[in-house]
Amino acid sequence: MILAVSLNPALDVTHHVAGVDWSGVNRPRQVTVAPGGKALNVARTLHALGCEVLVIGLAGGVTGEAVRAGLAESGVGGAFTPIAGDTRRTFAVVDTRSHDTALFNEPGPAVSVGEYHDFLVLYEDALAGSDAVVLSGSLPPGLPEDTYAGLAAAAGPAIVKPNLIELQDAVRRRLSGRAATARAAGELRDAGAGAVVVSLGGDGLLAVTGDGTWHAVPPGQVAGNPTGAGDAVVAGLAHGLVLGRPWAERLRHAAALGTAAVAAPAAGQFAAADYERALAGTLVTRWADG
Amino acid sequence: MILAVSLNPALDVTHHVAGVDWSGVNRPRQVTVAPGGKALNVARTLHALGCEVLVIGLAGGVTGEAVRAGLAESGVGGAFTPIAGDTRRTFAVVDTRSHDTALFNEPGPAVSVGEYHDFLVLYEDALAGSDAVVLSGSLPPGLPEDTYAGLAAAAGPAIVKPNLIELQDAVRRRLSGRAATARAAGELRDAGAGAVVVSLGGDGLLAVTGDGTWHAVPPGQVAGNPTGAGDAVVAGLAHGLVLGRPWAERLRHAAALGTAAVAAPAAGQFAAADYERALAGTLVTRWADG
Repeated sequence: MILAVSLNPALDVTHHVAGVDWSGVNRPRQVTVAPGGKALNVARTLHALGCEVLVIGLAGGVTGEAVRAGLAESGVGGAFTPIAGDTRRTFAVVDTRSHDTALFNEPGPAVSVGEYHDFLVLYEDALAGSDAVVLSGSLPPGLPEDTYAGLAAAAGPAIVKPNLIELQDAVRRRLSGRAATARAAGELRDAGAGAVVVSLGGDGLLAVTGDGTWHAVPPGQVAGNPTGAGDAVVAGLAHGLVLGRPWAERLRHAAALGTAAVAAPAAGQFAAADYERALAGTLVTRWADG
Repeated sequence: MILAVSLNPALDVTHHVAGVDWSGVNRPRQVTVAPGGKALNVARTLHALGCEVLVIGLAGGVTGEAVRAGLAESGVGGAFTPIAGDTRRTFAVVDTRSHDTALFNEPGPAVSVGEYHDFLVLYEDALAGSDAVVLSGSLPPGLPEDTYAGLAAAAGPAIVKPNLIELQDAVRRRLSGRAATARAAGELRDAGAGAVVVSLGGDGLLAVTGDGTWHAVPPGQVAGNPTGAGDAVVAGLAHGLVLGRPWAERLRHAAALGTAAVAAPAAGQFAAADYERALAGTLVTRWADG
């Protein structure tokens, strides 16, 4: 079983509007509401891959109830520590004419020390039955910055999946070119990660692992919604890990899921045909050492 | 007691963002959530005026629960017929830098014939103890266009409060100038309304009544958020009606509430000092007959 930790889940509300008036009144022609947050998107992708997955986290208020209900409806197992605050919303406005998407992410409820302690009891319990743990998404206000470091230390060796901006933030410098990116990923690995996989959008995945440095390049640009593509990559990496697949295969799988996710209408979804096509078209190369 | 009918209440979510990126990710610095819809805004204003008020309507789902809870918290009495669908959200993005506001109004849940029948039983009951009824706001999908006409017929003589665009829609022609507007309002009154009060934004209120034609002009332009100003006007008209005040006084009261509502941060609110200042500065004139 793969455990997905969602400390700051969200109720994702999406409005589809044909030609948004950004200083007036709009009547969306389509409204979708679904539980969200990165860990939940990862869990949905793993569920679609036929993987057993359990989401644990913190949830409160009527939005928290909606997240629990929506997750149960999608067939994904979930267990949430109740909190006093209201689970956050994210709000997306998709202009179906210009194809612009504006995202508005609420920060989330403050979590108390006592609530987080209750969650830790749930986490330790769930950890015992897990083959891998996914830690992904923002932290709610009130939790210290090293929260994920603490949870990761309890879980064992890690794959870290930053995007380029997150990697730049981690090494505190701008990165230009593939070689500089690989060097920075190597530094992150030296700091304690088992492997570092950098997602580069349309340029695919760059992985620095115990078995060398790899680059997975998808088959050209895909039109669509990049929201959730990184979550699909994480799902693919976790899936490949628990199946014990070699890195070349893991990366092809993860990159193809990311590509298929871009073509899907909502985060945490992908079409099998898009995945198969992307899998066939993805080129994985191993870099020469040194 | 004044009865306010909210057939399509909403949970109003407002995000305050400093400099919105309309094609990117935004992190609102302030989020407010409150029950909304025109009838609820009217009810809150009446409650603030010290008037006994009861909101009745239709509500369902977790958003419906949030509307019930929020209304109870504000001290306003409410009774809602439960429905299978989810009460709608409205979403407002306020750019605190450009002062633009974008509104996204969901249509609301489909209401079945059986659910509306249950509401009618509640309406007839509540009507018996009411001095006036306020019918305001959009209809949820599934209810026929003449729904308000039916409810109004059961309640007795009416004051109709269109804005200029609604009046133009009613008489099916563009209206230019005060005299043309008064003529159109007269036609609406001839069709059966007891009085017609047209709200003209910064130009105040134009009223065609059984006691002549009146114009209430507020004291100059007020900066702020015009959302809810029309609801404050309706509250003032209902309040003046149940107190039996003459038209000059009703209109001054209603226009001043509308002006004070523009200066308030949220619909259904106003500051007493803004109201007092607007009341002193509002000029009410009676037009010569003919």
